[in-house]
Parts: sequence; C-alpha cells; structure tokens
Amino acid sequence: MNTKQKILQIGAEIIHLKGYNATGLQEILSAANVPKGSFYNHFKSKEDFGLQVIDFFSDFFVQFCNDILEDAPNSPLGKLEKLLDGFMELFDSKAYTCGCPVGNFAQEMGDLSPVFQEKLSKAIDAMVDYYTSILTEAQVAGEISSDIDAKEAANFIIAGWHGALIRMKVSRSVEPLKNHKNFVFNYVLKS
Amino acid sequence: MNTKQKILQIGAEIIHLKGYNATGLQEILSAANVPKGSFYNHFKSKEDFGLQVIDFFSDFFVQFCNDILEDAPNSPLGKLEKLLDGFMELFDSKAYTCGCPVGNFAQEMGDLSPVFQEKLSKAIDAMVDYYTSILTEAQVAGEISSDIDAKEAANFIIAGWHGALIRMKVSRSVEPLKNHKNFVFNYVLKS
Repeated sequence: MNTKQKILQIGAEIIHLKGYNATGLQEILSAANVPKGSFYNHFKSKEDFGLQVIDFFSDFFVQFCNDILEDAPNSPLGKLEKLLDGFMELFDSKAYTCGCPVGNFAQEMGDLSPVFQEKLSKAIDAMVDYYTSILTEAQVAGEISSDIDAKEAANFIIAGWHGALIRMKVSRSVEPLKNHKNFVFNYVLKS
Repeated sequence: MNTKQKILQIGAEIIHLKGYNATGLQEILSAANVPKGSFYNHFKSKEDFGLQVIDFFSDFFVQFCNDILEDAPNSPLGKLEKLLDGFMELFDSKAYTCGCPVGNFAQEMGDLSPVFQEKLSKAIDAMVDYYTSILTEAQVAGEISSDIDAKEAANFIIAGWHGALIRMKVSRSVEPLKNHKNFVFNYVLKS
C-alpha cells in the first residue's frame, strides 16, 4: 500500500469511529506514522482529504457488495437479502458501533459545507443506484411488482437502513437491522 | 423564561445546527449572554448540559406533535399524515437543514459515551412509543391490519424518517421526506 492509500485507510477508520470534525490531522498522522509534509504532498488540505475519504468509503461499499454477491444466488431478491445479511455481519464484528460512514458524514457535514454536501449527495446516489439495479432485476425476474418505482424503493430502503444504523448505535443491538430487513421484504417489496 | 431555560433553548438551537462536539461552551454563553458562573449554577458540566438538551429536544417533539394533533381528524392514519406533513413544513421553514436533533445526537454520541447512549436510546424509544400508540389506534379503528406489529412498524417508520432526514440535508430538498410518506402509507401500512 502506498503512503496516500495508507493515510486514507487509517484516516477513514478514525473518522468512521469518531466523526470528521472530532478527528484531528495530527491524530491521523500519528496513527499512520507519517510526517505532516508527506500528508501535504498528497492532500491540499483537511477538506481535500475528507472529500477523498468519502470516495474511499464509496469504493468500500461497492467492493463489499461485489464481494458478497460473487457467489450469490441468481435471484435478485436473494442478492438483496445476502447484502443485508452481509452488512449485519459486518456490524456484528464491530459490536454494533460506527454505522454507515457515508450516512454519518452526510449528517455531520451536510449543513456545514456545500462542497461536502454535493459530494455526499452523490455518494448516497451511488448507493441508491446499486440497490436500484437489483430491484430492477427483481422486477424483470417477476419477484416484485412492476408497479413499484425501483429507484424510489431503493431510496426508501437506504434511508431506512441509515436510520436503523442510528438506532443500532444507541441500542448496541442487531434488532433495528433485523426489523429493517423484515419490513423491507415482508411489506415494502411484497405489495 | 428563566436563565436555565434560556441557556437550554439557545444551546439546543446551536447544537441542532452544528452538532454537540462542534459546539463550544463559550459559544453558548455568548449567544445566551450569560456568564460562565451562571451556567455552572444550573449544569454540573457540558455533559450534564448535553443530557438536559436531549430532554429539551424530547419535550419539543411531544409538544410539537400534540400541537399538530390538537385539531386533528379522528382518523388515526389521518393523525399520522398530519404529523408527517407538520414535520415537512417545519423542515421547509429551515430550508431542509438540521434534521432530527435526537437522531443527529444519537449518531454523533452513540459510540462515544455510554451515558449519552442510554439517554438517546430512551429518547428514540419515546418517539417510537408516540407513533406506536397512533398505529395501535389505527388497528382498533380497522384502518390498518391487525397482523402488523405496531411497535415494530413504528420503529421502522422512525428509522426511515431519520434516514430520509440525512438524505434531505445533502439534497436540500423535501423529496426524501415525501418519498418516506409515500412508502409508509402506500406500502408499509397498506398490506
């Protein structure tokens, strides 16, 4: 891993746990064991770094989903279920802390910076697009009604997931995520 | 309004906009025009203050809902619709910024402090209870199926709302809130 990747990965981990504003540049440099000059060789500012961390999180999301779906069933709804289960396992491994890094970032920085706002809007769009394509596949396969708007359903599912993760953090429990899955499969997509 | 109420209200407004960690004590004192000594007459610490701000937000939620429902229709689902519309108007008046103060606080502090974690879990419980009682009424009135678990549905609806507010902040638009309402009424509660 090159220095830039190392700074991004370690910085992303700290930001995921503590939030962007609460994470100081010095903390990242110490954790990555990198001098300040080296940081500024790769990033123009903390803001520039933060924006690239959002790309890092977005890339992680796509890679994580792709890995899960590598040996997925052919059924599109089976794929969606496998994704939700995969994310539940991920949060189980984190003792139900942290939540979605993109959702956290959006909540923290959405009001405070137009540059972050636009970047985060696109990052959530990309997550919605990933789910939309699975729901569209499910419509083609006849697994869900063609009356449902796949993109709006994906928006609703991602929003419910972000909210369930907030509840998860304060209850330190998988229940909100299980409840989300139950309502998505047995109510939202069943009509 | 007494000094304590004044500090709570002004502090709550700043925290709602900027977040808890990014809000300094000095900033609150200056905005409220109150000396530091006076603050410590009413609050043991910033943490004590933060915990009381959460109560302030919870009280606001109940008061806001009660006010909206004062001249509400008899139909329980009509009440729920009036609540969601009322919150949409509230966020319209804030140009789609800020989001849910309790949700924001939970996301920011859920991992960082067990005291806040427990307090915020109860605050979200209280919001869920408010919606649960409306959904239970709707079941008694035969407006929604008695097969649905009212409390779990309320959990799902509140989670979806919290996630929609995150999306709202970065899109600066009412669309995520409208989409939430559409799916709640036409999918979740329609089965």
